[in-house]
Amino acid sequence: MDPRAENSRRAIRRAALAELAEAGYGGFALDSVAARAGVGRSTVYRHWNGKLPLIADALETLNEQPGVQDIGGTARERVEILLRHLAEVLVSSPFSRCVPALVHAAEQDAMVRSFHHEYSARRRQALVRVIASGVQAGEFPATVDPEIASLALSGVVFYRRLMTGDPVDPSEVPALMDAVLGPPAATRLKPS
Amino acid sequence: MDPRAENSRRAIRRAALAELAEAGYGGFALDSVAARAGVGRSTVYRHWNGKLPLIADALETLNEQPGVQDIGGTARERVEILLRHLAEVLVSSPFSRCVPALVHAAEQDAMVRSFHHEYSARRRQALVRVIASGVQAGEFPATVDPEIASLALSGVVFYRRLMTGDPVDPSEVPALMDAVLGPPAATRLKPS
Repeated sequence: MDPRAENSRRAIRRAALAELAEAGYGGFALDSVAARAGVGRSTVYRHWNGKLPLIADALETLNEQPGVQDIGGTARERVEILLRHLAEVLVSSPFSRCVPALVHAAEQDAMVRSFHHEYSARRRQALVRVIASGVQAGEFPATVDPEIASLALSGVVFYRRLMTGDPVDPSEVPALMDAVLGPPAATRLKPS
Repeated sequence: MDPRAENSRRAIRRAALAELAEAGYGGFALDSVAARAGVGRSTVYRHWNGKLPLIADALETLNEQPGVQDIGGTARERVEILLRHLAEVLVSSPFSRCVPALVHAAEQDAMVRSFHHEYSARRRQALVRVIASGVQAGEFPATVDPEIASLALSGVVFYRRLMTGDPVDPSEVPALMDAVLGPPAATRLKPS
């Protein structure tokens, strides 16, 4: 692939997230994205077939979730990696500013709704799987329901970002995990 | 107070929530609210000093939270009343359709942001207080942090509403409470 073409596609994806954050989905215009990226509008139209395909591609490409399936370590360590990443991304990132726009647009537009729900579900599934493996390994109490626990953990991070002026700082993640998944085994087993 | 004037104010408040849900905050127009409510625009302008004061009044008046401070019963019963109410309201109500619009507008407008955060914090404080009283009474485990628990409980309900197509059904509230607050004492103490 031509590196110049790849650079301009990257610039267009970044411009798309900035446009979504500032103009919202209703005000999102491919022409403005081209202007932000400093490319001609034909370059945008050549690669993406409309605003939702461009936004979807930008979110998939620029907001990569850390892979934790094959990295070894404990389930607790892997849950912490996923949650710290989510908190970091939601405290401050181009993606963070797009979430309120997506939430609002999903309410108004069936295509956005279907993308937004599918994208969120796929991200959260990674967390469900790691929590389930930790329950199976006896790392988390058998009473932990991976589905509910993943909703509680993600729910706190999104609630604090969308409903308060105080997003979760990544340093708060271990305390949040203790509350939802129980304290680490060493603490649980420590004689009093 | 003149009952006809009171009726028209009620109609205007309901129209304001419908307008916010459909047009969003950016597209919200006091003239459209007057048309929806079937009143002259001067009637709207006489009572409210702009769109945010009208929206704030409509939310306070039409989305009343059940009072649980002085109703007796266990803390668990009172938490359940608050959470069932929140789930019912978010599954389907004029308020529910306003939340995405508020989340988006809070991102764009400092006055809306300050209202949205203050309003959400005040609602959640009722839950924090009841959970704290349950911890103090020994009804919930001493390890429960009322602040984090209230965020996890509210967080699941808002996450499911804003990020998935599957809002929390009120019948799911007890299982959610068991996951976050521990099972009821009778279950905890039952010999195996």
